[in-house]
Amino acid sequence: MSLKEKLFKQLEENEGRMIEIRRHLHENPELSFKEEKTAQFIEEFYKDKDVTLTANVGNGYGIIVEIEGGAGDGPTIGLRADFDALPIQEEADVEFKSKNDGVMHACGHDGHTAYMLILGEALIDLKDEWKGKIKLIHQHAEEIPPGGAKSIVESGILDDLDEVYGIHLMPTLDNGDITLCPGEAMTGRSNFDLKIQGSGGHGAMPHTTHDALVAGGYFITSAQTIVSRRMNPNDSVTVSITAFEAPGGYNVIQDSVTLRGTVRYLSMDNKEPVYEEMVKIVKGLETAYDVECTLDYVYDYPVLYNTVEKIGEIETVLEESAGTYFDKVYRDKPQAASEDFAYYLEKTPGAFIFVGAKPEGVEKAYPNHHPKFEVNEKSLLISAKAMAEIVLNKVG
Amino acid sequence: MSLKEKLFKQLEENEGRMIEIRRHLHENPELSFKEEKTAQFIEEFYKDKDVTLTANVGNGYGIIVEIEGGAGDGPTIGLRADFDALPIQEEADVEFKSKNDGVMHACGHDGHTAYMLILGEALIDLKDEWKGKIKLIHQHAEEIPPGGAKSIVESGILDDLDEVYGIHLMPTLDNGDITLCPGEAMTGRSNFDLKIQGSGGHGAMPHTTHDALVAGGYFITSAQTIVSRRMNPNDSVTVSITAFEAPGGYNVIQDSVTLRGTVRYLSMDNKEPVYEEMVKIVKGLETAYDVECTLDYVYDYPVLYNTVEKIGEIETVLEESAGTYFDKVYRDKPQAASEDFAYYLEKTPGAFIFVGAKPEGVEKAYPNHHPKFEVNEKSLLISAKAMAEIVLNKVG
Amino acid sequence: MSLKEKLFKQLEENEGRMIEIRRHLHENPELSFKEEKTAQFIEEFYKDKDVTLTANVGNGYGIIVEIEGGAGDGPTIGLRADFDALPIQEEADVEFKSKNDGVMHACGHDGHTAYMLILGEALIDLKDEWKGKIKLIHQHAEEIPPGGAKSIVESGILDDLDEVYGIHLMPTLDNGDITLCPGEAMTGRSNFDLKIQGSGGHGAMPHTTHDALVAGGYFITSAQTIVSRRMNPNDSVTVSITAFEAPGGYNVIQDSVTLRGTVRYLSMDNKEPVYEEMVKIVKGLETAYDVECTLDYVYDYPVLYNTVEKIGEIETVLEESAGTYFDKVYRDKPQAASEDFAYYLEKTPGAFIFVGAKPEGVEKAYPNHHPKFEVNEKSLLISAKAMAEIVLNKVG
Amino acid sequence: MSLKEKLFKQLEENEGRMIEIRRHLHENPELSFKEEKTAQFIEEFYKDKDVTLTANVGNGYGIIVEIEGGAGDGPTIGLRADFDALPIQEEADVEFKSKNDGVMHACGHDGHTAYMLILGEALIDLKDEWKGKIKLIHQHAEEIPPGGAKSIVESGILDDLDEVYGIHLMPTLDNGDITLCPGEAMTGRSNFDLKIQGSGGHGAMPHTTHDALVAGGYFITSAQTIVSRRMNPNDSVTVSITAFEAPGGYNVIQDSVTLRGTVRYLSMDNKEPVYEEMVKIVKGLETAYDVECTLDYVYDYPVLYNTVEKIGEIETVLEESAGTYFDKVYRDKPQAASEDFAYYLEKTPGAFIFVGAKPEGVEKAYPNHHPKFEVNEKSLLISAKAMAEIVLNKVG
Repeated sequence: MSLKEKLFKQLEENEGRMIEIRRHLHENPELSFKEEKTAQFIEEFYKDKDVTLTANVGNGYGIIVEIEGGAGDGPTIGLRADFDALPIQEEADVEFKSKNDGVMHACGHDGHTAYMLILGEALIDLKDEWKGKIKLIHQHAEEIPPGGAKSIVESGILDDLDEVYGIHLMPTLDNGDITLCPGEAMTGRSNFDLKIQGSGGHGAMPHTTHDALVAGGYFITSAQTIVSRRMNPNDSVTVSITAFEAPGGYNVIQDSVTLRGTVRYLSMDNKEPVYEEMVKIVKGLETAYDVECTLDYVYDYPVLYNTVEKIGEIETVLEESAGTYFDKVYRDKPQAASEDFAYYLEKTPGAFIFVGAKPEGVEKAYPNHHPKFEVNEKSLLISAKAMAEIVLNKVG
Repeated sequence: MSLKEKLFKQLEENEGRMIEIRRHLHENPELSFKEEKTAQFIEEFYKDKDVTLTANVGNGYGIIVEIEGGAGDGPTIGLRADFDALPIQEEADVEFKSKNDGVMHACGHDGHTAYMLILGEALIDLKDEWKGKIKLIHQHAEEIPPGGAKSIVESGILDDLDEVYGIHLMPTLDNGDITLCPGEAMTGRSNFDLKIQGSGGHGAMPHTTHDALVAGGYFITSAQTIVSRRMNPNDSVTVSITAFEAPGGYNVIQDSVTLRGTVRYLSMDNKEPVYEEMVKIVKGLETAYDVECTLDYVYDYPVLYNTVEKIGEIETVLEESAGTYFDKVYRDKPQAASEDFAYYLEKTPGAFIFVGAKPEGVEKAYPNHHPKFEVNEKSLLISAKAMAEIVLNKVG
Repeated sequence: MSLKEKLFKQLEENEGRMIEIRRHLHENPELSFKEEKTAQFIEEFYKDKDVTLTANVGNGYGIIVEIEGGAGDGPTIGLRADFDALPIQEEADVEFKSKNDGVMHACGHDGHTAYMLILGEALIDLKDEWKGKIKLIHQHAEEIPPGGAKSIVESGILDDLDEVYGIHLMPTLDNGDITLCPGEAMTGRSNFDLKIQGSGGHGAMPHTTHDALVAGGYFITSAQTIVSRRMNPNDSVTVSITAFEAPGGYNVIQDSVTLRGTVRYLSMDNKEPVYEEMVKIVKGLETAYDVECTLDYVYDYPVLYNTVEKIGEIETVLEESAGTYFDKVYRDKPQAASEDFAYYLEKTPGAFIFVGAKPEGVEKAYPNHHPKFEVNEKSLLISAKAMAEIVLNKVG
Repeated sequence: MSLKEKLFKQLEENEGRMIEIRRHLHENPELSFKEEKTAQFIEEFYKDKDVTLTANVGNGYGIIVEIEGGAGDGPTIGLRADFDALPIQEEADVEFKSKNDGVMHACGHDGHTAYMLILGEALIDLKDEWKGKIKLIHQHAEEIPPGGAKSIVESGILDDLDEVYGIHLMPTLDNGDITLCPGEAMTGRSNFDLKIQGSGGHGAMPHTTHDALVAGGYFITSAQTIVSRRMNPNDSVTVSITAFEAPGGYNVIQDSVTLRGTVRYLSMDNKEPVYEEMVKIVKGLETAYDVECTLDYVYDYPVLYNTVEKIGEIETVLEESAGTYFDKVYRDKPQAASEDFAYYLEKTPGAFIFVGAKPEGVEKAYPNHHPKFEVNEKSLLISAKAMAEIVLNKVG
């Protein structure tokens, strides 16, 4: 029986526990940076196991579990699963519904953690048969900037990684499918708050005011030119203004208003130019409308760049198994969303891939972050096996 | 001793009570449509006096006090004082500060009511010496649309009025000054709410949404053309957008947003055209941005039009007294603000005039509706005497 | 027979010549600053008459004709008639149609000059019977900035004027009507050219350009806020963008574009603020769109301000004659158009008034500057008599 | 000596004639659809050669030259060279400068034709040694819509083509380089004219007009949202407004204005959506600004889509020769420009590739369509040989 066969066997035998763990986490979701009990649960899991566990890594409850292979020297491979939940009131009709009001695992991180724990256990149990080192990265706070990944990377604890891998469950993808995207695979993100400070007054006397709200309107129309005129049409760039805070009554012209938004790009080459162009527009606005602007512009998660060579390796490994424990693997377009897994890939070669998790009998699944989000639990075993194959390819 | 002399004497002797009443009201302000205790106080005042008092007139606590003159037939004259307060937390440093948290007489209606009660009392005491009839209009709810005046007029109780007069205290005007404005004197007003219903989505996927917030931005810039291009430059028209309600985070493009604003005009000829042009812009917005708009547009207080002839009469009467109990009377420009006294003047000739009430030793007084608003209490006796002269000119 | 009767008699007897002269000028119109033959014609008219004629006054063919009254000391009164024509191809169906292609007396200046010559002749003939001095101002170039009036005033030749008067014929006003407007009567004007210098390129590569045309579009929308938000709603201000010069094909993003427009105001208080606000918008545009702007902004004809007292005097004089040689005189609203007569009034008290000239049997007359513009020639005698009355009131 | 060797030898021996022909054409450029003499020159070239020449193909001077291979059955391959010039005044400092004022071969079509003639001659001379059929497509009018290609395709004369190939010279690419782009390689294009009909008037009376120029300004700002909000950020779409025709003076608000522009896309999926969104914006404009719009929107050259498999074949063929008669071949990004070669590829598999033509000793070459555009004449022989290899791979 090969190492892979042994590993697969153990994973199969523990599929029930995997689902159990996932349901436990699903019932007890915790918000980003507040995952105290989730972290305890994970730490508990590794108790009495022959690993080096470091808790409270980075800016939160991050946990690094180091497993030393017993079969000699080899590379150090990081495998990451995130464990935070979202500020969403669950509307999914499941038995193991969230017990925490307004908090929900609506992005599948419960599944990520569940498969990784069981995979980790199997890798520990079989560690004499593989070489090198595996670092399981149980990451907190993926959902809220600045995220947990950046601080974990900066802590230095992963400095010895040779490669790093991660999986995301996708209910909008057929269960049984796995997708790969070489190079730019998920957008980089900047977020901004723009406060426009004018001076208010009576609604019937606009000339005595500097109308911040009207300036905000012109900002919206001007900001469209960043994408439409200033970026290379071949580049994927988005500037979305997502909030305009200026509540009020009929009679009073407001002193100040606040706008908020997000910027996305598939090439880091666009990161700074978008900011620079927004600064021009904001400075122009100040002059043209006699207002003072405060632009808080934060470079957030970078573009997630999958090492092209690693995607090739994964493709080769998985294509051999296609039709066995999963249906097919194929290359897909980049995703519009952002992920702080990008920080690991900035420093270390590796890849972040997608595992289909569409629920049974559903035509169109609810997307990630939807109150009715559900994952097909069969995707957990698939994830565990796929990741097992990927890592065995390195340390097996 | 002439009737006027007697009247003035009684007013002078009761200046202390006038101020006392004003301070009592100031300490106990009540919001528009909720002036229960204020109304009780006023009704109490007229108890045992030989008048016909009708309470709960119109859509609130309006009170009409009818005084029959004993000197024969004559005109029926309405004198109006409003008595509601504002949702403002008082910051003025006075001994008789508001006892009601978040409610304040910041527009001088306490003073209006105080002088009118004492003037009413004097007119009652001396009623055998004047002819005709006087109707004191103690009006509720001037500050909030639809106001009290409209419903009082519609109740029919003032159908027999020949003329109607009112005074507003103005701390921004020198104490001792009285100003008159013939014809259009205060703006008419329409208020609007515009709900833009698009369809939201992920901030990184604008093409899957109909972006209501962006449509709102373009509405702001388009709406500027109502005044700048579509109204006669010789007409005074204002369109102010005073609220943009679209709170939210960075990632989500919103489903819908709400804007709000006010429209002002000094000629009723502009009332409908502004609405019609806004409808065009809103309908154009729906088509251009694939959104659905709900425009709630309310024609509110009309233009306050002072009968030119009545202003002339008042000017003649007051100019004779200028330099005695007040300093000077002069014609002034129209006011940007709106007033529901306009409804009385739509039906009945008359005038609404301004009495200076700048506090002593103050360079620049806080304007009406300011948390630090204060009136010079000397303006109360001036108001009572000026109104006495105006009404005696008719019934004396 | 009174002086006025004599004067009126002579004017009546020469009505035929007045019309003849007007038709001669109408057939031979000359553009502003190029009125060589018109000036010769006028000089010819005064030849052998006992006056002091100064030709080529100011920046063109201006002519000042000084007539000394023989009846003693009195005021010096200026009477102005302009004589330039417009770059318009006449389409009016008249026998005395313009013989100069593309040039037309479409603003009645032919009529102004004709009545003034005959009136001047009569005043000369009767000069022994009146006192003081009359200066006839035959002005060139009213239609094109900088106009003739400014330079005539600056020449000093009118420094001794005590009062100054002018008439404009108005076909849109009933023949027989005369209108007066005290104070601000015609708008002041500024004109501007805005060149936006970006850098052009291929239509498919906007990011390599600084798109001047798009910046021009945003200028248009921003400029609307000058009137809608920045000027007192009670003030009459207009900002019209009347030209956008950016001809071109489909493929090339342009290097630069030019916009052009006019600003009007009824109060000189608005003259500078409009400029200042436009500068803000233009500077903001430069920053926001990375373009270089050249704003050529010229303060042109000032607000025409009729001396209130003089309008009162004219009203008194003319009301006595109403119903005789003309029907009625009344006060009217300010005019949207501008006039360089305003320069005379900046220095000297006086008035500029309007004489109705609607053609017979016409429901709605073509307005000034229309290719089908026509005047009722009966208005010439009315103008001559009205002006005679006005001046006799001073020197008679 | 292989066929390829023979062919290369003949091409090398005739390089001088190739250059001579190119210079002749360069001196005698003719505008699109007016290439009478150029067509005569080409026809003359094939005189007495054993080919079937069809002239005046399609909507202009298109010439199809059919060469029958003598070595048996084989595919029918089309090779295209365009021959029209541009309305540009040449500023390049060359001995063989354009003799036609304002007309210039500024896009290298002279070179395309020259190499193709010499290659054609060689293929004719050696036709007994290859199989199948070659159709040389000497195409008129590539530069101006609707172009020549579409009509040639529609004529049916190319219905039997199995594959089709073309080369474009690129001075911005190093001489010696050849680039390939599989799939979408050059943008599709739509062009539009938008006439906005309002109603004009006096610059001081905007309320009496429907201001077409201002509506045009708002069109510009609204149109930015087509790319910024309505298209998938991953798609390459450009909307450029390249002309705004509204010349005029200061005083007159214009009746109508015309805007013009181009739309580019790298996926035909975007062709109709851009049009549909522009229609929405235009219809919204009509409603919002009370104007009438005429949108002439023409779907022009489609996206040029290189058959992925053919690019692969070419890559294989050329990579073997890299380092011999040219330096290197590599895959490159899509081009922003459009090409009517796209019409051939809509019907027939094939490819359009780029041959570097940077002049000697130049750091940065002037781009296509520049008055100083120049090509390195060494690129002609490279083009001829590369195309020879491509076609021999099919018929050799």
